[in-house]
Amino acid sequence: MIRNLTTLLEKVRGGEVSVEEALEQLKRLPYENLDFARLDHHRALRQGFPEVVFCQGKTPEQVACLVDRLVACHDRVLATRATPLVYAAVRTEVAEAVYHEVARLIVVDREPERAKQPGVLVVTGGTSDIPVAEEAAITAEVMGNQVERLYDVGVAGLHRLLDQSEALMRARVVVVVAGMEGALASVVGGLVAAPVIAVPTSVGYGASFGGLAALLAMLNSCASGVAVVNIDNGFGAGYLAGMINLIT
Amino acid sequence: MIRNLTTLLEKVRGGEVSVEEALEQLKRLPYENLDFARLDHHRALRQGFPEVVFCQGKTPEQVACLVDRLVACHDRVLATRATPLVYAAVRTEVAEAVYHEVARLIVVDREPERAKQPGVLVVTGGTSDIPVAEEAAITAEVMGNQVERLYDVGVAGLHRLLDQSEALMRARVVVVVAGMEGALASVVGGLVAAPVIAVPTSVGYGASFGGLAALLAMLNSCASGVAVVNIDNGFGAGYLAGMINLIT
Amino acid sequence: MIRNLTTLLEKVRGGEVSVEEALEQLKRLPYENLDFARLDHHRALRQGFPEVVFCQGKTPEQVACLVDRLVACHDRVLATRATPLVYAAVRTEVAEAVYHEVARLIVVDREPERAKQPGVLVVTGGTSDIPVAEEAAITAEVMGNQVERLYDVGVAGLHRLLDQSEALMRARVVVVVAGMEGALASVVGGLVAAPVIAVPTSVGYGASFGGLAALLAMLNSCASGVAVVNIDNGFGAGYLAGMINLIT
Amino acid sequence: MIRNLTTLLEKVRGGEVSVEEALEQLKRLPYENLDFARLDHHRALRQGFPEVVFCQGKTPEQVACLVDRLVACHDRVLATRATPLVYAAVRTEVAEAVYHEVARLIVVDREPERAKQPGVLVVTGGTSDIPVAEEAAITAEVMGNQVERLYDVGVAGLHRLLDQSEALMRARVVVVVAGMEGALASVVGGLVAAPVIAVPTSVGYGASFGGLAALLAMLNSCASGVAVVNIDNGFGAGYLAGMINLIT
Amino acid sequence: MIRNLTTLLEKVRGGEVSVEEALEQLKRLPYENLDFARLDHHRALRQGFPEVVFCQGKTPEQVACLVDRLVACHDRVLATRATPLVYAAVRTEVAEAVYHEVARLIVVDREPERAKQPGVLVVTGGTSDIPVAEEAAITAEVMGNQVERLYDVGVAGLHRLLDQSEALMRARVVVVVAGMEGALASVVGGLVAAPVIAVPTSVGYGASFGGLAALLAMLNSCASGVAVVNIDNGFGAGYLAGMINLIT
Amino acid sequence: MIRNLTTLLEKVRGGEVSVEEALEQLKRLPYENLDFARLDHHRALRQGFPEVVFCQGKTPEQVACLVDRLVACHDRVLATRATPLVYAAVRTEVAEAVYHEVARLIVVDREPERAKQPGVLVVTGGTSDIPVAEEAAITAEVMGNQVERLYDVGVAGLHRLLDQSEALMRARVVVVVAGMEGALASVVGGLVAAPVIAVPTSVGYGASFGGLAALLAMLNSCASGVAVVNIDNGFGAGYLAGMINLIT
Amino acid sequence: MIRNLTTLLEKVRGGEVSVEEALEQLKRLPYENLDFARLDHHRALRQGFPEVVFCQGKTPEQVACLVDRLVACHDRVLATRATPLVYAAVRTEVAEAVYHEVARLIVVDREPERAKQPGVLVVTGGTSDIPVAEEAAITAEVMGNQVERLYDVGVAGLHRLLDQSEALMRARVVVVVAGMEGALASVVGGLVAAPVIAVPTSVGYGASFGGLAALLAMLNSCASGVAVVNIDNGFGAGYLAGMINLIT
Amino acid sequence: MIRNLTTLLEKVRGGEVSVEEALEQLKRLPYENLDFARLDHHRALRQGFPEVVFCQGKTPEQVACLVDRLVACHDRVLATRATPLVYAAVRTEVAEAVYHEVARLIVVDREPERAKQPGVLVVTGGTSDIPVAEEAAITAEVMGNQVERLYDVGVAGLHRLLDQSEALMRARVVVVVAGMEGALASVVGGLVAAPVIAVPTSVGYGASFGGLAALLAMLNSCASGVAVVNIDNGFGAGYLAGMINLIT
Repeated sequence: MIRNLTTLLEKVRGGEVSVEEALEQLKRLPYENLDFARLDHHRALRQGFPEVVFCQGKTPEQVACLVDRLVACHDRVLATRATPLVYAAVRTEVAEAVYHEVARLIVVDREPERAKQPGVLVVTGGTSDIPVAEEAAITAEVMGNQVERLYDVGVAGLHRLLDQSEALMRARVVVVVAGMEGALASVVGGLVAAPVIAVPTSVGYGASFGGLAALLAMLNSCASGVAVVNIDNGFGAGYLAGMINLIT
Repeated sequence: MIRNLTTLLEKVRGGEVSVEEALEQLKRLPYENLDFARLDHHRALRQGFPEVVFCQGKTPEQVACLVDRLVACHDRVLATRATPLVYAAVRTEVAEAVYHEVARLIVVDREPERAKQPGVLVVTGGTSDIPVAEEAAITAEVMGNQVERLYDVGVAGLHRLLDQSEALMRARVVVVVAGMEGALASVVGGLVAAPVIAVPTSVGYGASFGGLAALLAMLNSCASGVAVVNIDNGFGAGYLAGMINLIT
Repeated sequence: MIRNLTTLLEKVRGGEVSVEEALEQLKRLPYENLDFARLDHHRALRQGFPEVVFCQGKTPEQVACLVDRLVACHDRVLATRATPLVYAAVRTEVAEAVYHEVARLIVVDREPERAKQPGVLVVTGGTSDIPVAEEAAITAEVMGNQVERLYDVGVAGLHRLLDQSEALMRARVVVVVAGMEGALASVVGGLVAAPVIAVPTSVGYGASFGGLAALLAMLNSCASGVAVVNIDNGFGAGYLAGMINLIT
Repeated sequence: MIRNLTTLLEKVRGGEVSVEEALEQLKRLPYENLDFARLDHHRALRQGFPEVVFCQGKTPEQVACLVDRLVACHDRVLATRATPLVYAAVRTEVAEAVYHEVARLIVVDREPERAKQPGVLVVTGGTSDIPVAEEAAITAEVMGNQVERLYDVGVAGLHRLLDQSEALMRARVVVVVAGMEGALASVVGGLVAAPVIAVPTSVGYGASFGGLAALLAMLNSCASGVAVVNIDNGFGAGYLAGMINLIT
Repeated sequence: MIRNLTTLLEKVRGGEVSVEEALEQLKRLPYENLDFARLDHHRALRQGFPEVVFCQGKTPEQVACLVDRLVACHDRVLATRATPLVYAAVRTEVAEAVYHEVARLIVVDREPERAKQPGVLVVTGGTSDIPVAEEAAITAEVMGNQVERLYDVGVAGLHRLLDQSEALMRARVVVVVAGMEGALASVVGGLVAAPVIAVPTSVGYGASFGGLAALLAMLNSCASGVAVVNIDNGFGAGYLAGMINLIT
Repeated sequence: MIRNLTTLLEKVRGGEVSVEEALEQLKRLPYENLDFARLDHHRALRQGFPEVVFCQGKTPEQVACLVDRLVACHDRVLATRATPLVYAAVRTEVAEAVYHEVARLIVVDREPERAKQPGVLVVTGGTSDIPVAEEAAITAEVMGNQVERLYDVGVAGLHRLLDQSEALMRARVVVVVAGMEGALASVVGGLVAAPVIAVPTSVGYGASFGGLAALLAMLNSCASGVAVVNIDNGFGAGYLAGMINLIT
Repeated sequence: MIRNLTTLLEKVRGGEVSVEEALEQLKRLPYENLDFARLDHHRALRQGFPEVVFCQGKTPEQVACLVDRLVACHDRVLATRATPLVYAAVRTEVAEAVYHEVARLIVVDREPERAKQPGVLVVTGGTSDIPVAEEAAITAEVMGNQVERLYDVGVAGLHRLLDQSEALMRARVVVVVAGMEGALASVVGGLVAAPVIAVPTSVGYGASFGGLAALLAMLNSCASGVAVVNIDNGFGAGYLAGMINLIT
Repeated sequence: MIRNLTTLLEKVRGGEVSVEEALEQLKRLPYENLDFARLDHHRALRQGFPEVVFCQGKTPEQVACLVDRLVACHDRVLATRATPLVYAAVRTEVAEAVYHEVARLIVVDREPERAKQPGVLVVTGGTSDIPVAEEAAITAEVMGNQVERLYDVGVAGLHRLLDQSEALMRARVVVVVAGMEGALASVVGGLVAAPVIAVPTSVGYGASFGGLAALLAMLNSCASGVAVVNIDNGFGAGYLAGMINLIT
């Protein structure tokens, strides 16, 4: 940002750019005003990945429009919490869009063959946690990470997890997805040397209070090196894990 | 109220009004008993705007009846949280009623050409907050305010907001509508010199707990000059903002 | 109770007991009215252990009086949540009373040499959970159980627990005492074949909300065979564990 | 576990098993990887009862597959929270599966004639608590317990409970199922000498907050010997009660 | 109020009272402005008992001043939540003030010999609930009720309560004071034909959350005829019970 | 109860009743075991009104069966929270059953002409609170009370309430039904000399949290003489108000 | 901001300012880095009032240092939540600082004689709410507003409030400060035509949960034109009210 | 772990180690049983940093003993939440221990000159957040990271943060420490391309509910790449940030 500003100021000094033009440019950082939304194209420059479309609360038409505009500028586009209906609308506009039903993700990736960075491991406590885990895993994959999956290794049968210690040790960053009491985050956090991103899920009933029990448990983890994202936020965990794994 | 009482008492002294009549008048402050409701016609005198119909929990017939009676006495009538079904019932009784679908508002305005007072700005964090924002904006407009809209300028892409500083500086009162973490209220509150009415929305999932996260965040705003209304209460924010903007 | 009633009725029929006397006896099931308390001496008959004095909210004098009366009827007396001040008052009345400072228990046991039933294991996640664990352990011991202790085996260093699998397998009933995320209950519950009584503790800070996080986690345990008592309720867990271990 | 390890190590020493084979065996403790789940066959050895299938959040096909695999290894299989749809899918695979509609349980029991251990009593406050109570009762029965039922004996008409004191006294372990204020757990806990497993139910409205009121009440029981499981967790209570009743 | 107004209007008509004077009188309903407080002397007329001083959050001097002014107009004065310090200040001003230490009440009663209406019964679950119960009992007594007390009859030893059925049957209104799980309200509510005013207390620990558990339990009582006041609000319960008992 | 016992014992002494028979009678206090329910016929003796059927969570057949059995013993029967479907089932069994749709009550009253005791006033804040208010009003009427209704007099237009001060003053007991902020209970409580039973309703949205806001407000009422029942519990309030109004 | 930027750019073009200098200036918007704090001197320009010091969580020395620096640049300085200890430290540095003990405010005002804008009214429910109300009132006064106070007019004695309708009608903006059930905000909101800023206070006990009851009530106000600030946030309410009253 | 096992098995095969010895070794993974604690020396191998002592809830003697044993095996030792009293006890045993008062950390570092990895940035919203921030910063430094600090850049004066964009852009991982509404996490998360570890603090009052408001806000951040640790858990954030920054 400072560099852009320097260049601009030099052009102003050199008379190549008028004061009025410079003001306009300073105002028009790259975003696109679609009336119902302001697409942050600048995000790809700023953070290395374009703005992700959160479909919930938007009409299929709005999502289709947003994906269409993003595809015009970026090689990879991601839309989360997409229903089949939303996907139908998107596909009409963007034929190459792919739908991952379990993960509720729409993905456009024009360079799917890019080399992937190994190191992300996604772990779940149970079978019901898989949709959230897949959202995390595919998100990280789209970002350029290679993802290992280790599902249904909850603490009630600890040997299923201990048995996979090689995968655990191999990981550079681990996403732990668990509902109910969320104990898996602490157990994994105590076994690995890698950062753990914990995702509480709303799997459970009664005093799980929609994932609150797992959320609180994970926030209070007695293991060091564990941080938490929102309940059922597979995307957030996958994004952060992918980001960490891509640090060079 | 004191003036009315003085007049009445003077008439009682002058014998123009009997004690019994005076008692009756003192009892009958202007409201209308519709059996299922007591319409507060006096409110227009007391507060400058007639009673607003909150449709939720009322049958379409009840709403239609209430709007009909209000229209008989007032130039402007507002009904909030109206479904299309409610509107259908109202329209049968009051042909001139207009429905704003996104905002779920029914409006009767017999003097739509009245001059509007500029100064209200309505801002949203995201696209999904627009229904609540429109409820606020149209409410303020019906009251006689001119409303500017600035939608989808959430804090994850701050330049979209900073880019609009002129609109922010121009406002005499700002309504900030945001879900999730509700941070936009504090950021706007720190930028403007005008009062900020913050509306938390139920947009979000998991630990947003139906808007609780945004509500608490807005109540704890580190910026001065911010007050908060109920979750998703676009009407309340628009009404208060309109009221502030009309102070002379 | 039915047997007592039968006897009484037979005596009434036989004329040994008058109707008035029978009514009096039916009223006077064995409890003692001390004005500020009604001591339930009957409990020892009904439940096998006399009423336990909960010291919190009582004056030292009240506790001393209650212990004194209980000692008059029973061989074993237990008072929980006792401060040193309370103990001082009790000791003045009942010289043989013993104080367990860490566990905050006052114990009178006139038959300490009775044979103990092995089978109770008390486990803690951390060092700070020990006071609650000791309350559980000593309670079970006073009831006639032999108690094994396994402290500071929290899930962040799982090998400390796995290393003790013999003790775990040997137990007939396990009390798990843990604060923070309370994951230990699930891990132990998944390893043992015995009933697990889980005690959340208020050890932790922030989002542990005084033990709520551990409580919810334990209630949502994915392991079968786990039940939970109140936060910091070492007595309750020890009592129940002791009761289960003494079932014949 | 220690014994298996000893045998293995002796075979390694004796050359019967190579180091590589031993490593493999140490890794493959008996569980079955079904891709979407890892079936813990080892649990039957470790805890005396095979892994129970929690149907909620799983597709009917996944449940059918899991039951099928469990039936291949075990004489008794239990699936909880099963809808009629899930049962239809299971029955296609496992003809002998029985559905208990009120309790929402699928049971496969190849040795239904085994002798049952008397001693479990299941009590409810009201009629609406019966589904949870049946889940508890049938679970305990499948485990080999004989279960007595005492339904609709809530504290508002105490004589209905007191009238059944013989059943209460006979029980070796009592499951108390109650919604609303959950007072029944304390009342029963004060009458019996047996452990009480309390199950709060979501029966109620308003400030019952989905069973929270009963849950908190039961956790704060003034009676000794009461522990609590999750709201509506009939299975958990029945399992624990059955486990306690089978202790020898 | 209507009668006063009639008289006033007749005097206005008759010229005995000028319009200005009438306006003044209409403004000056009897309260006294003490700068830091507006004493509602009118309350004694309106509700039969003068305004009660809630001492918490007021300085001893403020309380003393308020009691002094009330004593000037009324025969009976009550101040709640009074510390010994507050009493010392009050006594300097009002020598006849009496302090009930356990109940934390200051009472001035110039006609203590008035005949009392029998019918109020105050019941507690435990010894620690007595301060709240005494606040209720003395409040009702000052109002002119005769109060019976039945303390420490919690549901863990039900015979202590059942034994007192005569007192229960005799009562015209019952105040039930209980902490922990608050089950006593339901049990009493199921036994008596009289209205029950339930007072949850903050007695308990852990998941009692300062009386929340008892509050929720009492609100969800399965017995009919039970209403609830705030946690530890002995005054409120005693006042309401006294009011009900004095209905003629 | 004591009297019955006396008579029984005298008969035992006189030989009219054998010990075995007496035991049987002592056991069989009048309730009826319907397998899925134990009907408390004794309640009418004990509390003056027969057991009320709470329909929620029961099948239409169960409700029909219960009403049928109650009608066999009692002149008045009440079933709450009844859907039209439930009523259809009841009507098949009990032709004289009447359905109050707004109040969701089923009433059987064989002596509808009995004289009613005037004195109960039911007040609501808004139109949406009427279903709960009607549940209260009809309940009190069935019990033998004459009920006045005062609907939609919420505090936002205070003159609607003040205008009705005669009705307020006339009442011997007032039921206040209000949602949102529940302020009406305090305002009415400050105006009347009668006991106020406050019913919070779930009318509202956002931070009303299903009636929690109104519930907490009513529990914290600064007016004396106010007690609270569960959210939306019109039955409970009407029952208690009716009971108070019938005290002689 | 745009104007400054224009000037700067013109100077850059004109060669008066080098690119490096311009970059430096763009970086140095007026704030002062004190190591432990960054004083936002720019706020006075941006928002019309300098940064206010929130003393809680700062050492007396830190506060004194901050006030000292602010006084160097501004005519009016405000520090909130100041203890006497903090004031002692401030006074050592800034002799002219004045301490308002009840309001816990430190004020430096070098132009106290400036004309004040009438129109702010501060109302409290009780005497215990006065400290919060004074914080609001003095804050608004320091900003240049004339403030009327109306204390202890809670809804339990409504005539105290109705009696003051002239003051209510005169106000251009009203601050309502109330604890317990917070009903005063709705009642005032229904009476006045001015915006109402509601401040819930932590005055109360039990189910007031530290002000939560009043907060929720105020957020759910059925009166239009009410917004809410944080519990006990007198400063925030006074600041916003003052800001609204100064709008021209 | 697998490698150690291989070696061991080879030795068993070779007869160098007997079966009994092997079993012993398999049991004795390196931890030290101190009776009140089991020191997990293995953690340094497993996770690259030795077990950290959490002082809260431990006696000074216990902490001193633990630090002493850790120092015997490791070059760096960290104890968190240490009071001056605890430090005094530690220093008696371990003379080289250093106390960071603001951060409440005790540090022993025998190789303080080791090269540090740049890349960690710690940011706070206010001055009161500094203790938590210092706990994070020093923790990361002890682990071998170079830490930049940016304090008091809360969103109410956004230019203070925007001014530091170079520091933000330079960071490889950012720790954001903020109380009140916690908006800073989202704003920073929207500006940087690095992972953000957010730490809510308990700074605030009223509806901050001890940090809950900030916690919920951070969990609901609309910016991608943000994860959250427990309230006031500076250590946890610093540890995780340090771990991420050291990934190679």
